[in-house]
Amino acid sequence: MQLGLIGLGRMGDAMRQRLVRAGHEVVGYDRDPDVSDVPDLTSLVSSLAAPRVVWIMVPAGEATRATVTELAGLLEPGDLVIDGGNSRFTDDADHEALLASRGIGYLDCGVSGGIWGLDNGYGLMVGGRADLVERAMPLFDALRPEGPRDEGFVHAGGVGAGHYAKMVHNGIEYGLMQAYAEGWELLGATDVVTDVDGCFKAWTRGTVVRSWLLDLLVKALEQSPGLDGIDPFTPDSGEGRWTLQEAVDHAVPMPVTAAALFARFASRQDASPTMRMVSALRGQFGGHTVLT
Amino acid sequence: MQLGLIGLGRMGDAMRQRLVRAGHEVVGYDRDPDVSDVPDLTSLVSSLAAPRVVWIMVPAGEATRATVTELAGLLEPGDLVIDGGNSRFTDDADHEALLASRGIGYLDCGVSGGIWGLDNGYGLMVGGRADLVERAMPLFDALRPEGPRDEGFVHAGGVGAGHYAKMVHNGIEYGLMQAYAEGWELLGATDVVTDVDGCFKAWTRGTVVRSWLLDLLVKALEQSPGLDGIDPFTPDSGEGRWTLQEAVDHAVPMPVTAAALFARFASRQDASPTMRMVSALRGQFGGHTVLT
Amino acid sequence: MQLGLIGLGRMGDAMRQRLVRAGHEVVGYDRDPDVSDVPDLTSLVSSLAAPRVVWIMVPAGEATRATVTELAGLLEPGDLVIDGGNSRFTDDADHEALLASRGIGYLDCGVSGGIWGLDNGYGLMVGGRADLVERAMPLFDALRPEGPRDEGFVHAGGVGAGHYAKMVHNGIEYGLMQAYAEGWELLGATDVVTDVDGCFKAWTRGTVVRSWLLDLLVKALEQSPGLDGIDPFTPDSGEGRWTLQEAVDHAVPMPVTAAALFARFASRQDASPTMRMVSALRGQFGGHTVLT
Amino acid sequence: MQLGLIGLGRMGDAMRQRLVRAGHEVVGYDRDPDVSDVPDLTSLVSSLAAPRVVWIMVPAGEATRATVTELAGLLEPGDLVIDGGNSRFTDDADHEALLASRGIGYLDCGVSGGIWGLDNGYGLMVGGRADLVERAMPLFDALRPEGPRDEGFVHAGGVGAGHYAKMVHNGIEYGLMQAYAEGWELLGATDVVTDVDGCFKAWTRGTVVRSWLLDLLVKALEQSPGLDGIDPFTPDSGEGRWTLQEAVDHAVPMPVTAAALFARFASRQDASPTMRMVSALRGQFGGHTVLT
Repeated sequence: MQLGLIGLGRMGDAMRQRLVRAGHEVVGYDRDPDVSDVPDLTSLVSSLAAPRVVWIMVPAGEATRATVTELAGLLEPGDLVIDGGNSRFTDDADHEALLASRGIGYLDCGVSGGIWGLDNGYGLMVGGRADLVERAMPLFDALRPEGPRDEGFVHAGGVGAGHYAKMVHNGIEYGLMQAYAEGWELLGATDVVTDVDGCFKAWTRGTVVRSWLLDLLVKALEQSPGLDGIDPFTPDSGEGRWTLQEAVDHAVPMPVTAAALFARFASRQDASPTMRMVSALRGQFGGHTVLT
Repeated sequence: MQLGLIGLGRMGDAMRQRLVRAGHEVVGYDRDPDVSDVPDLTSLVSSLAAPRVVWIMVPAGEATRATVTELAGLLEPGDLVIDGGNSRFTDDADHEALLASRGIGYLDCGVSGGIWGLDNGYGLMVGGRADLVERAMPLFDALRPEGPRDEGFVHAGGVGAGHYAKMVHNGIEYGLMQAYAEGWELLGATDVVTDVDGCFKAWTRGTVVRSWLLDLLVKALEQSPGLDGIDPFTPDSGEGRWTLQEAVDHAVPMPVTAAALFARFASRQDASPTMRMVSALRGQFGGHTVLT
Repeated sequence: MQLGLIGLGRMGDAMRQRLVRAGHEVVGYDRDPDVSDVPDLTSLVSSLAAPRVVWIMVPAGEATRATVTELAGLLEPGDLVIDGGNSRFTDDADHEALLASRGIGYLDCGVSGGIWGLDNGYGLMVGGRADLVERAMPLFDALRPEGPRDEGFVHAGGVGAGHYAKMVHNGIEYGLMQAYAEGWELLGATDVVTDVDGCFKAWTRGTVVRSWLLDLLVKALEQSPGLDGIDPFTPDSGEGRWTLQEAVDHAVPMPVTAAALFARFASRQDASPTMRMVSALRGQFGGHTVLT
Repeated sequence: MQLGLIGLGRMGDAMRQRLVRAGHEVVGYDRDPDVSDVPDLTSLVSSLAAPRVVWIMVPAGEATRATVTELAGLLEPGDLVIDGGNSRFTDDADHEALLASRGIGYLDCGVSGGIWGLDNGYGLMVGGRADLVERAMPLFDALRPEGPRDEGFVHAGGVGAGHYAKMVHNGIEYGLMQAYAEGWELLGATDVVTDVDGCFKAWTRGTVVRSWLLDLLVKALEQSPGLDGIDPFTPDSGEGRWTLQEAVDHAVPMPVTAAALFARFASRQDASPTMRMVSALRGQFGGHTVLT
C-alpha cells in the first residue's frame, strides 16, 4: 500500500527501506532536502491518494506536536496518522483529539529495534481503534520481524497504549543493561577471573542470561576490549524517566528501574553534590580533612 | 571418553543423557539406588579406568565437601575431579589443595542452562590449570551448545574462576528477572495497556529486550495468564548473596543486583519489621492510629 | 494581630492555640460547626478587619483549590492569603495568579512539627514576596520555635518555594525513618544483640545518630516493645512521591529517597506482582514448583 | 578508678580527658612517645595495680589483634580488657577466647560521638559478661553523656554485641547522611528555592528532621557556603560494609543502607566501569557515538 513517511533520520530511513522491500510505496518527507522526496508536507499530502496513511517518525515532543498540528490542517476526513516516534503516552490523547476533530484517524505505535531493525524487523506496540489497526496492518506486517505476528506485534490497547508499552519496554531495557554492566564491573574488580570478556562471550549460547543485548555487548567488547576508550557519560531519552514517574503515580515499587536511571544521572555529574555534603559531614563529626 | 558422574538429580541426569548422546561412557552414582549405576563411591572409582575423570554434581557446601573428601581417599595420582555444582568460589581452593596433596587434579565448572540444557546445551565457565582443562575438553564440548566453542565455554582463569563467573552470571540473572517483572507490574497497574501479556509476547522478536528469559516469561504467562496462581515467595540459591558480598568487599556499586536480591528477601516476609517501625514512627509524630 | 484560620483539624486547632497563646486574635472556620467560630467563609471574611490575613490549613489539592477560589471572590484588594497546608508547589503559581487578579496577596508556607508543634513550635518554610512575608512575620514568629528566627523559619524564595522546601523536607524524612528502621530490623534478625530496644534508647544522647525521630522511636518502642502489634501498612502523603518526580525531572539521583518510598508502596501490597513473575520464571528454568 | 588506656589518637586522647575530669586515674600508652605516659605495654601493665582494667583504642583489625595478643602475655588472671575500637564483631569471640585462656576478662564496647564526645559524652554499647560490665561501670558512667544511664549506655548482649550494635549504628548513620544530602542536592538543582542553606538551618528546631547530624550540616554549610570546596570523595570505615554483609547473611532487605554505601563507592571512581558498558551498549543498538 501507499504510505507517507515523515522523518527520514536513522530510524525513518531504515523503516522506509524495509517497507519498500515488502512492496509498499513510500513517499518520504524530511527537513533535509537532500533526502526528502517532496519539498514540504503540503506536497507530501497532495502526492498521496485518499484515504491516506501518514507515518510520523520525528523527535518526540515539540517536533511531533507541530507535525500533527500541520497535518490536521492538510489531511482530509478518512485519512490516518500514525505516530511511530518515542512520544510520551500522555501526548497521544491530545493528538487524537485534534485529528478526530477533522475526521482523521490516529494510532500510536512504539517501535523497538534500533539500527538493527532494517534486517531483523521491528518490535511494534500499537494503540488505537481496532478498525484503524486493521487498516494499517499491511504496514505493521512489513515492519515487524518474520514469524508469527504476535511475536513481534501487539495491539496493546486504546490510544496511548502503544507508547505506554514502548515506555515500559525501555524502562526494562535500562534495568537489563545495568544488570549486565554491574556484573561486568565486578568481574573486572577482582583478579579471580582473568578472561572477563571471554565470560560474556561464553554466555551467549546455552546460559540463562543469553539475550540480544548480550550479543551486542560481546560485539562492543570485541570492538573495544575492556571498553577502555568508552566515555561513561550516558544520556537518557526520557522513557526511563516517564516509566519511573508512572511507577510513582501508581505506587509500583520499581527499585531496579530507578537504580538504572539514577546511575545514568550520576554518570553525567562531574562531582556529586550529595557526596560533597556527605563528605563535609564526615569532616564535621570525625575531624577529617575533606577540602579539595 | 569415560566419566564418573556423582549426583543424578534433575541436572545431573540431564547432563548424563547429553554426554551419552555425544558418545561418552558415563558411570553414574547417586544416593538413590534406583537411579545409581553403582552402590557406592568405591565401586564408582573401581569401575573407571585410570587416569579417571570424576564429575561432581551435588548440592554446594557440605555435600560437595564430603564428596571431595571421600574422593581424595579413593582416587589415585593423575586422576581428575571436576566440581560442576554451584559451589562458592572460596571452597575451590580448599578442594584443590586437598586433592593436590594426593596428586589428584581439580577443576571447577559453573554450569548454566537449567532443565533446558539437555537439548540446548549448557553454558560452561571453567577454572583451573590449562592442561587439565584441555584433558576434559571432550566433555565440555559435549555439554556446551552447538556452535563455536567460545560462545558457550570459557576457561575463565585459575581454580575458583569458573564458580566465580557462574556466581556473577547468577547475580546478573537476578537483575534481569527483576527488570522484566517490574515492567510487567507497572503495565498491570494501569488500565492504559489492556493486553499486558500480549506485550511480553510481542517483545520476543525484533525488540531490544528480547532474550531467553523473556521467552520463558511468555511460556509462564501462557500457562498461567496473569500469573494468578503464582506464589510470590522467592528463595535464593546463595549466588546472588555471594555476588553482593563480593561487591561490598571490592567496593563495586551494584544497586540493581542488590535491589533484586532484597526483593527476594522481602518476598519471604509476612510482615516487614522495617515497615512496622516506619508505621509506628508515623503514628508518633502524626498522631495516626497504626495498630493492627 | 488578627487572623482568619480555615481548617481546625488536628494541625489547625493546635496552631490556633499556639497563636492565641502568643496574643494573636484568631477567628477560625471549619466545616464542622462544632469547632467553627463562624458559619461560613463569608462570615469569616466579614468578621475580619481589612487588610485581612487568612491562613488556609485544609487538605492539599481539591479542598485547598476550592477554598482559594472562594476566598478570591470574598476578599478585597490588599488582603493576604497564606496556604499552610501540604500543597504541591506547582499549585502555588495558580493560586497566586488567581488571587493577584483581585489584588490579593499570596504566600505559601510549609509547616513541620506534627502534633508536637503546639509545644515545640513549628518549623516554617515560606515562599512569596518579601513585603508580604514581612507583614505576616508576627504570625510566623508565634508559630515557630523559641530561639533565633533563622533556626525555625526561612523565607525560602518566591511563590512555591515554601511548599517546595517542605516537600524536600518530607522526602528526607522518609529516608531517615527508613534508615533507622532497617537497622532495627537487622538487630532483631540475629541473636547477637539481646537488648535491641535498649540500643535505640542508648543512642538518644551522645551518639552520631541522635535525633528527634530517634526520640520518637524510643517512645514507640516503650509503648509497644518489639512493635509487635504494629501494622506495617504505611501510607504516603504525596510529598515523597513529588520529591521523587522532581528528582527525575531534574536528573538528580536519589536512591535512598526512592528506596524509602518504594518500601512504603510495597508495605501496602498483599502479594507483589513483580515477585510473582520472578517466582514463575524461576519455575520455568529451574523446574521448581511455584504454584500456591 | 585506675585505667590503662592504649591508643591516644584523636578519640583516645579525648576519652582520657573525659575520664580524668570524672576523677579516674588514666595511664596512657601510645606508639608516639611524645604523648605516651609509658614506654611500652610492659611498663603500662606494671604501672597498674591488679586487678587491672585496660582499654584498647587502636585501629580495628591487625593493630587491635596484635595488642590483645600482647596483653594476653602480660596481664594476669582477674584482669579485664575492653576493646573500645571499631572492631568487627566477629573478632570479639577470638579475642575473648584468647584472653579467657589466661583467666583475663574481655568486654567489647562500641563508642559513638566523634570529636564532640569530650564535651557531650559518648554513646556506649557494651557486650560481655554482666559481672565484668558491672565492674567497669564507673568508667562507662564517666564516658557516657550526663542524664539517665540508659539514654547513653546499653549492655547490648554477650561478647560481640557491643561492636554489633555500633556496626548497625554506623550503617544507620550512612543512611541518615545520604538522606539529608540527597535532599540538599535536589534543592540546589532547581531555582525554586533560592535560600537552600537557609532551609537546612530553619529545620534545626521544630521540624521532624531535626537531629545532631543536621546541626553539623548547618555548621558545615556556614563554614563553606554551598560546600563549594568540598571533595565528594568519601571513604568508608568498614562498618557500613559489615552491616550490609550481615543483612545479606540474614536475608534482611536494607535498600537504603545499601544505596548509601554504594554512593560512597561510586564517589571514589573516576569513571564507572558499569556506565562505560551501558554507554557502549547504547552505541551498539542506537548507532550513537560513545567514544571519548
